Formats: sequence, structure tokens, C-alpha cells
Amino acid sequence: MKKFEEKTLHTEAIFNGRIISLQVDDVSLPNGATAKREIVKHPGAVAVIPITDDGKIIMVEQYRKALERSIIEVPAGKLEPGEEPIVTARRELEEETGYGCETLTYIQSFATSPGFANEIIHMYAASGLYKIEHPVAGDDDEFVELLYVTIEEAEAMVQSQAIYDAKTAFAVIWAKMQK
Amino acid sequence: MKKFEEKTLHTEAIFNGRIISLQVDDVSLPNGATAKREIVKHPGAVAVIPITDDGKIIMVEQYRKALERSIIEVPAGKLEPGEEPIVTARRELEEETGYGCETLTYIQSFATSPGFANEIIHMYAASGLYKIEHPVAGDDDEFVELLYVTIEEAEAMVQSQAIYDAKTAFAVIWAKMQK
Repeated sequence: MKKFEEKTLHTEAIFNGRIISLQVDDVSLPNGATAKREIVKHPGAVAVIPITDDGKIIMVEQYRKALERSIIEVPAGKLEPGEEPIVTARRELEEETGYGCETLTYIQSFATSPGFANEIIHMYAASGLYKIEHPVAGDDDEFVELLYVTIEEAEAMVQSQAIYDAKTAFAVIWAKMQK
Repeated sequence: MKKFEEKTLHTEAIFNGRIISLQVDDVSLPNGATAKREIVKHPGAVAVIPITDDGKIIMVEQYRKALERSIIEVPAGKLEPGEEPIVTARRELEEETGYGCETLTYIQSFATSPGFANEIIHMYAASGLYKIEHPVAGDDDEFVELLYVTIEEAEAMVQSQAIYDAKTAFAVIWAKMQK
């Protein structure tokens, strides 16, 4: 889909970090004018909606420096280079929650901030959950706490802004629709 | 909510652009170790789910340079400095669609990419839509095309990835729940 395509005239690399990079593109617009586009590149990520047999969603609370607060989210994590999203999903579920799952179902993919970033999140639902005895450890700079949340509790947490995250807002309303 | 707080030891400003800025923070972790956090600052945004009297969602197709493709989204736009989100919502609805609305209802707010950005989107639903005779024009580097989409069409567009955007994925499932 190339409607209203903006052709790149010049790319200036600004920053190349551990997780993201930043560039500024000069582009030509459909009307012939030019504009600048500030673009963050990100490797992409998965998010998993883990649903227990009794209908609770397993979520993780973690501190998000960008927001200067902790928020409650469904388990998620970045794609490693060349990694299939469904492999990332299984890995992140295990690392962040200690659970494995019998069924991992793809829901959909979406860009989180298409105005300035190319990050895509691939959403999965996990069911048939079971505790893994010795789960793989997560990143050593990640501190998370598990919560088991009913749909009703999740809706209250959206109201109180304890849940304050797009993928998790999607997850809550998606899980509600499945009931 | 300060659980697992990461205290800032040092902030390095990398880039200060027209829309976003970028900084790298050195932080101290709960276990006393240190880590680097790459953080994009964004002014925040609104998104509006405009529902026509016959139950269609008005969406806009536009080119997103970060994704190198056009996608179909609910109307959205950045907060101007000091602007109340509900004012931005009414303005963006008019600029992008040419519609005003009798009722603008706050739904919820969420961070789009809490792992690396502080962008918050405030979601609204608009109903009682009416055409504005001489609508305020949008940004002169924005080219958009309007679509009137039923819920069933929207779901097919999610499957085909014509809809490929977190706030719009939320909007589709939210609108479906209201039926």
C-alpha cells in the first residue's frame, strides 16, 4: 500500500543504540513539497495474553523508565535478530511468568506508534498454561512481579490507570470478547 | 506507582526534534546495578473513534514513513503545548475528517510504547456527527483519504493488515463491543 508515498531524498543517522536507532529523513510529498520525518527504528516485539484455566489473565508489573512509573502489562518482549515471533512469544512467556503453554494462538499484529516509530507488536493468546520447574531467566535488568487478574479486575485497573499500556488495553477488551 | 523504581544517575540529551526528542539515561536498578535506558519523549496524542448514525467508523488512510507504507487508522493527532486532550480530539476530528460531533466521550488513555517512549494516547468516541461546511485545514504535510467502514469490514481489514495500528485495533474491538 503506497498511497500518498513519501520518497526518501536523504537520510541522516542520528543515534544507534542498544534497543532503538533514530534517523531523520528528508522526503518528497505527493504535492512535490518536502518535509522532514523523525523516525525511530525498533526490532519489533511480541505480546502474549496468557489465560489461565479459570479465566484469569497473567500480567506483569514493571517499572517503565520512559513513563517514570510502574505499570501492569501482559508479558511482552523484543524479537531477537532472525527470531520468529511465535518463538519469541514462547520465550518471553517463560522468562516473564515461568509458565509454558499448550496452545499459542496468533491474534494480529499492529504498529504501536506509526507516526514516529516502526515498532510492530505481534499479539498471541496462550492457553493450557503449566508451571515450568526451572524457567529460563529473563534479562538481568528486568524486575517484574506477577499478577493473576480477572476481566472485572482488569477493567477496574484500566479505570485507575494501573493498566496504562496500549497492548494491554487491547488484551483486556479482547479477553472480554472471548467470554 | 514506584515499584522497582529506577533512579536517574545521569541524562544525556541526544536529539531535540520537531516532534520527538531522544535521551539516554543511566539508571540505578533495584538490585544496585546500573543500566542504560534509551528514551523517546513525545508530547502525547489523542485518537477519536467517530461512529456514524448508521454504525460505521470513519477512518483515514495515510502514508506512514516510519512503516514505508500507508495504513488505515482512526483520526488522531498530537497535543499542542498546554492543550486539553478533549480540545485536541475535537480539532483533529475536524481537520482530518471535516466532521464535528455532538458528543465526545472519553474512553481511556494508554502508553503506546512504554519500553522506549513516553507517548500517551487519549482515546475518545465521537457520535452525533455532522459535516462542517468550512473545516479547519490540517497540517500541510499531511495527506489523508476518508473511509467509512463497518465493523465487519474493519475486521477484514485487520486480517489483511490494511488496519495495522494499535489504537485502531483497539478501536475496532471497542466498537464491536458496543454493538
